[in-house]
Amino acid sequence: MSNKNVQVTLASRPTGWVQESNFKIVETEIPKPGASQVLVKNLYLSLDPYMRGRMNAGPSYAASVEIGQVMVGRTVGEVVESNDPALKPGDSVAGYLGWQLYASANAKELQKVDPKLVPLTAYLGAVGMPGLTAWWGLLDIGAPKAGETVVVSAAAGAVGSIVGQIAKIKGCRAVGIAGGKAKCDLVVDQFGFDACVDYKGGNLARDLRAAAPKGIDIYFENVGGEVLETVVMQLNPFARIPLCGLISQYNEPHPHGLDRLVMLLGNRVKLQGFIISDYAARNAQPTAELAQWVRDGKIRYRETIANGIESAPRALIGLLKGENIGKQLVKLF
Amino acid sequence: MSNKNVQVTLASRPTGWVQESNFKIVETEIPKPGASQVLVKNLYLSLDPYMRGRMNAGPSYAASVEIGQVMVGRTVGEVVESNDPALKPGDSVAGYLGWQLYASANAKELQKVDPKLVPLTAYLGAVGMPGLTAWWGLLDIGAPKAGETVVVSAAAGAVGSIVGQIAKIKGCRAVGIAGGKAKCDLVVDQFGFDACVDYKGGNLARDLRAAAPKGIDIYFENVGGEVLETVVMQLNPFARIPLCGLISQYNEPHPHGLDRLVMLLGNRVKLQGFIISDYAARNAQPTAELAQWVRDGKIRYRETIANGIESAPRALIGLLKGENIGKQLVKLF
Repeated sequence: MSNKNVQVTLASRPTGWVQESNFKIVETEIPKPGASQVLVKNLYLSLDPYMRGRMNAGPSYAASVEIGQVMVGRTVGEVVESNDPALKPGDSVAGYLGWQLYASANAKELQKVDPKLVPLTAYLGAVGMPGLTAWWGLLDIGAPKAGETVVVSAAAGAVGSIVGQIAKIKGCRAVGIAGGKAKCDLVVDQFGFDACVDYKGGNLARDLRAAAPKGIDIYFENVGGEVLETVVMQLNPFARIPLCGLISQYNEPHPHGLDRLVMLLGNRVKLQGFIISDYAARNAQPTAELAQWVRDGKIRYRETIANGIESAPRALIGLLKGENIGKQLVKLF
Repeated sequence: MSNKNVQVTLASRPTGWVQESNFKIVETEIPKPGASQVLVKNLYLSLDPYMRGRMNAGPSYAASVEIGQVMVGRTVGEVVESNDPALKPGDSVAGYLGWQLYASANAKELQKVDPKLVPLTAYLGAVGMPGLTAWWGLLDIGAPKAGETVVVSAAAGAVGSIVGQIAKIKGCRAVGIAGGKAKCDLVVDQFGFDACVDYKGGNLARDLRAAAPKGIDIYFENVGGEVLETVVMQLNPFARIPLCGLISQYNEPHPHGLDRLVMLLGNRVKLQGFIISDYAARNAQPTAELAQWVRDGKIRYRETIANGIESAPRALIGLLKGENIGKQLVKLF
């Protein structure tokens, strides 16, 4: 065990695109766990689009990260010291322990996970927050019926790839939207979508119509911008839009929303924003279901893994630019 | 009984604002009712914002009016000849008989109404389509809870004025948005809203915050544009937006939608378009409830009545510009 902690803190707030200079690498002491706390060695850090919002001063999903604070983030790791009977050294846990090698936390704020059931990193992806985001957004807000067409943007990403696979499990036609041929091939060949449309291909409207010839019943939205404008022209009456993310707009000083709002009126569309933390109390069943689907091979996932905590800022920037495939992780040890 | 029918037909499709020249006044024979049909003398014609969409060739709520066809519209009138035992001469009926003095229609497509229960014109307003639009949009999509704040745009209009009054009946704080002091005074003094904000007053954001100090839980949307952009900044978490209309944008060649879509994500807002005709099979209870509220004085309404079928084009233009107060009607005889 190294005798120093390393953290990534927020050095300054970005204007427009995130820069590596917005972060600072800091060496500190390894914290001592207090009463009912445990010390965790973080093995993997999850990078996610929501982090961009936390870097702003303005309103976001949740409180901003303050300048000088450790960046927020979900982690999986191993308990190394425990002052709580619920966890013992060697236990694997998931939690929001941030961009750092070690953290002390209250035992009750951590979730014990079983790396023999599915690989440890899956608890940050298909069986973790991204998988649960797909599960709740698609099933609770989207409420798919067999035979319907489900379209999802950022389909090669950690959430989107799961959305399409759950749509298939529920008997729907799954159509992805992703950037570039490599991602589209992955979405169809690896994740088993019925089709995937390359939004960089120059004719999204035509290609989407070919991929979703019966129109779109559910659009699981991760990106916003021109993709959303195109999709709303092909929605069926009574379509549902689980609004999960708008990643194309997070770095825009003047975000583009939705000009064609009237299409939601005429087609009686429901668009609903959601945040996965609102479902925290009800995650036991979805988590078990996702783990079973992963074990059964019904849900497959891919990971892009950056090495070392120092690589985290660059990896987040890559994620925001769509450079990753599947779940973006940072391996900390 | 005059021996000629007079109709208003669509002469040409508007580009941008509707012009009187888009319509044509036509004299024709009074139609003979066929089997199971009745001949109706239309006494009042309802003018409504949705008519603007029907004048376009493009997609709207429903099929466009074709060039040369009689303009669509809801009417109340009196049966003058009947070939169906369900209706007899002298009965009062409501139906979609269009912009014309007389029409023959299948008896089963008409609703018999009782002018002794509430005034005949109320069946085009508070107890008719606008009242039902308010009832379903607010109660089914908005799902208000006592103590919540309901904001409605076009609050002096036929739908908006009822929305606020139902909100009050349900124990909510009702805040209107309307154009000009006269309308705002009416909304508070006549319709009993807790407050009304003049969007032409120059500081909608500040004035709305003062009128809705606890934030907005339901925004019943009739107008769109800058009003919507302002309201979304003041929504509470889990707010609902029944999307009923976007009248500020109907005459815009390049409509403005919603730039601040990200606010719906962060606050987990549900925005849902709806069209009153989807609820047609379930209107008996809401209609009875609205009629009772009118009789009890819990719902009050105002009408702007144009005289003579020839005035209908000008009156529709006025409606689209916000010149009317309450329900816009045309008195046909």
